[in-house]
Amino acid sequence: MGTIFLYEIAGTAALLLLGIGVVANHLLAKTGGHGGGPLMIHWGWGLAVFAGVWIAYKTGAHLNPAVTLGLWASGAEEYAPGIPVNVANTLAYLVAQLIGAMIGAVLAYLAYKKHYDETEDVAAKLGTFSTAPGIRSYGWNFVTEVIATFVLVFVIINFGHTPNELGPLAVALLVVGIGASLGGPTGYAINSVRDLGPRIVHQLLPMKNKGDSDWGYAWVPVLGPIVGGILAGLASTLF
Amino acid sequence: MGTIFLYEIAGTAALLLLGIGVVANHLLAKTGGHGGGPLMIHWGWGLAVFAGVWIAYKTGAHLNPAVTLGLWASGAEEYAPGIPVNVANTLAYLVAQLIGAMIGAVLAYLAYKKHYDETEDVAAKLGTFSTAPGIRSYGWNFVTEVIATFVLVFVIINFGHTPNELGPLAVALLVVGIGASLGGPTGYAINSVRDLGPRIVHQLLPMKNKGDSDWGYAWVPVLGPIVGGILAGLASTLF
Amino acid sequence: MGTIFLYEIAGTAALLLLGIGVVANHLLAKTGGHGGGPLMIHWGWGLAVFAGVWIAYKTGAHLNPAVTLGLWASGAEEYAPGIPVNVANTLAYLVAQLIGAMIGAVLAYLAYKKHYDETEDVAAKLGTFSTAPGIRSYGWNFVTEVIATFVLVFVIINFGHTPNELGPLAVALLVVGIGASLGGPTGYAINSVRDLGPRIVHQLLPMKNKGDSDWGYAWVPVLGPIVGGILAGLASTLF
Amino acid sequence: MGTIFLYEIAGTAALLLLGIGVVANHLLAKTGGHGGGPLMIHWGWGLAVFAGVWIAYKTGAHLNPAVTLGLWASGAEEYAPGIPVNVANTLAYLVAQLIGAMIGAVLAYLAYKKHYDETEDVAAKLGTFSTAPGIRSYGWNFVTEVIATFVLVFVIINFGHTPNELGPLAVALLVVGIGASLGGPTGYAINSVRDLGPRIVHQLLPMKNKGDSDWGYAWVPVLGPIVGGILAGLASTLF
Repeated sequence: MGTIFLYEIAGTAALLLLGIGVVANHLLAKTGGHGGGPLMIHWGWGLAVFAGVWIAYKTGAHLNPAVTLGLWASGAEEYAPGIPVNVANTLAYLVAQLIGAMIGAVLAYLAYKKHYDETEDVAAKLGTFSTAPGIRSYGWNFVTEVIATFVLVFVIINFGHTPNELGPLAVALLVVGIGASLGGPTGYAINSVRDLGPRIVHQLLPMKNKGDSDWGYAWVPVLGPIVGGILAGLASTLF
Repeated sequence: MGTIFLYEIAGTAALLLLGIGVVANHLLAKTGGHGGGPLMIHWGWGLAVFAGVWIAYKTGAHLNPAVTLGLWASGAEEYAPGIPVNVANTLAYLVAQLIGAMIGAVLAYLAYKKHYDETEDVAAKLGTFSTAPGIRSYGWNFVTEVIATFVLVFVIINFGHTPNELGPLAVALLVVGIGASLGGPTGYAINSVRDLGPRIVHQLLPMKNKGDSDWGYAWVPVLGPIVGGILAGLASTLF
Repeated sequence: MGTIFLYEIAGTAALLLLGIGVVANHLLAKTGGHGGGPLMIHWGWGLAVFAGVWIAYKTGAHLNPAVTLGLWASGAEEYAPGIPVNVANTLAYLVAQLIGAMIGAVLAYLAYKKHYDETEDVAAKLGTFSTAPGIRSYGWNFVTEVIATFVLVFVIINFGHTPNELGPLAVALLVVGIGASLGGPTGYAINSVRDLGPRIVHQLLPMKNKGDSDWGYAWVPVLGPIVGGILAGLASTLF
Repeated sequence: MGTIFLYEIAGTAALLLLGIGVVANHLLAKTGGHGGGPLMIHWGWGLAVFAGVWIAYKTGAHLNPAVTLGLWASGAEEYAPGIPVNVANTLAYLVAQLIGAMIGAVLAYLAYKKHYDETEDVAAKLGTFSTAPGIRSYGWNFVTEVIATFVLVFVIINFGHTPNELGPLAVALLVVGIGASLGGPTGYAINSVRDLGPRIVHQLLPMKNKGDSDWGYAWVPVLGPIVGGILAGLASTLF
């Protein structure tokens, strides 16, 4: 269980450090990549997954409750070689992922500290931490998160079947693609802790000129990915 | 034959969900990737293929009548390990691909529902579903589709010859490249069901403020890819 | 020798079809990718190499006199398995590459026919076929082509030494990188036939509203890559 | 030791030639890629690493004091197969990397010579050679370089653990990702010689209309990466 905590915390921290970082680079004032655009963000998040997966290889690099719960729903016997699927391990994955996401958010804040200080737009600041919908409509936003996470987890469960040696590149590219294709409406949380961990950090951090943490929307990017992941796990049993 | 239906439907649905998704992200109002540009679209479609191929590995992941008919024209004995080339299987591939394309179009519509509702431009809405030429000229548009599909299918038939472990990445990158290089005139259908399936869905869906489905152009992206694919299959026999 | 002709012609034709295609998509009027930008062009050319290399695997996929002459200068004994380095084979490679480049240019013209017709800017039209310097200075333009081609051929000769299974992806990415990094001054011919073949086609094609083919500059992108490739071949013998 | 010098010099020279090249392409006047944007720069530097690693495979392709010192701090016994970790070899790596970086900077200057001549903006010229912060704050700039280099070296040390055949592509993509995600505040030196070598060259080169070399900032991108690399080496011993 110490292994789960060490690797999932470190990997999820790297994921969020780099993922929040690329949005900060795009949104915050006076950065080198200011206004770098959607495709920079898609590659940034994809390669954030890339880095996180290398680090967390020993625990199967879930880094995401939707993956853990999707594997559970698929009837898998192990989360990674030597780590059986059971309640205690499942909880350890989820808690470690949330802690890692919060650590990554703090590190990203430190890396961009002066740029947070000099950015006036409070929505942009929150936008580096957590996702927000283009058009607020909880029901349809939820549908989008379910569909996008379904694709993520369903394809991940298929990775073992096709001969290739892409390793962590496969999931990285999948995330680039989901961001480009299904990220438009809600900013593609597709990972409950990716949204919740940084939102908690945004709430707690003593930040200059800080806006609201938008808790009213918070349940969508938490529950949507969980439902999408579990549905993908169940659907994978048909294949 | 159940295998052909299950895998080709699921893979083609993923292809169209992600492919329509990236165009919707670029074209529709109030999306996170609005105006993301051509390269975002090329990567989005390439990685849509990437996702679809992982899912449909068991049937060789044709996802495209041009691939199925190109393999048939090349004199291949099997469409995938254990699936012989014959009339019944050929038809099963084509029907499954069309059904999958229609399902993917519906899912993409649901993922972007509110953005379809709030977009005024009816050409943009149709543009997320089906391709349209930059300069309408049925003859030359047909030529472009034949050339682009020829490259796609001819290179795919060569994939087995060079040592590499790229797996589904090879065809994904090929599609990114064809989009960037040969997508300019017609929007690169290069796949009959990729255009026809969503066009049927566009016709049938009860969509707010919906324009014409442009059936006058529909034969170009259906027949062009079929001719290009068959020519590539025939040409491959010289190599 | 028939093998050399068949594969090098087909591979170089694919390279130029896709390479000219992406510049046409960026430069010509009314294309889907109009103004797609430098990075679209870099990926387009890189993936043009990707496609060409799959096709020409049997002859080692030179597709470029700088590669052929660089291998010759490096003291290699074979151009590809079963194809010895000798004068006749060397000439066959070069002639096949030039023919292939011309065929590819004609195909790209056909794919974008209506867009050539409707584009007024004659420099843009020539710019889709051949390279042109940002600042005309034959001596420094030559230096740039030598340096860029040196990197291309020197790294290619190193491909065998590092364990990986990237196959044609390695050279594709190398070309993306050289385009982004060293393409700024001259448009990175880095391949004599890539520039000369399309320039001949531009001269000969009966094109509506056609400008000059700029033969005064033509020697730079022909000789620069040859010198760079030979220097890389010689330098590789030190390693 | 001759091997270390030959390979690390050549690999680091390629890294800087291509890395400076892409920034020159973006910033200098009248280049083909002028204003190509952040993502072009991220890919350019990532693929600069790609090229350098192929060249320097025999010495493990450190190309960066942060990698050399990180491996030393991790308790590794060899820097590459057959090259033991000891003081003399460590110094040889560092000196070779600095020499290589300077050679690469001179080559990049030559490749873009006319564009340096015709660019008025002295900050842009220095910006092609060395990094500069978006918001000058030595302490926070240092923090950013430490964090970004930590990610680089920590993930590199993990590369051996996960089955894949990506070879030099893994570190190339990691650098693309770090650039997109953590490059915003300081321009991601993440390599002491990447910044110091070109800064020395900028100081020494007889350049038309040349500005200050900003030595006041120079210690940040030298010490930050060293500290980040050593911390990553130490942290890796926990995993």
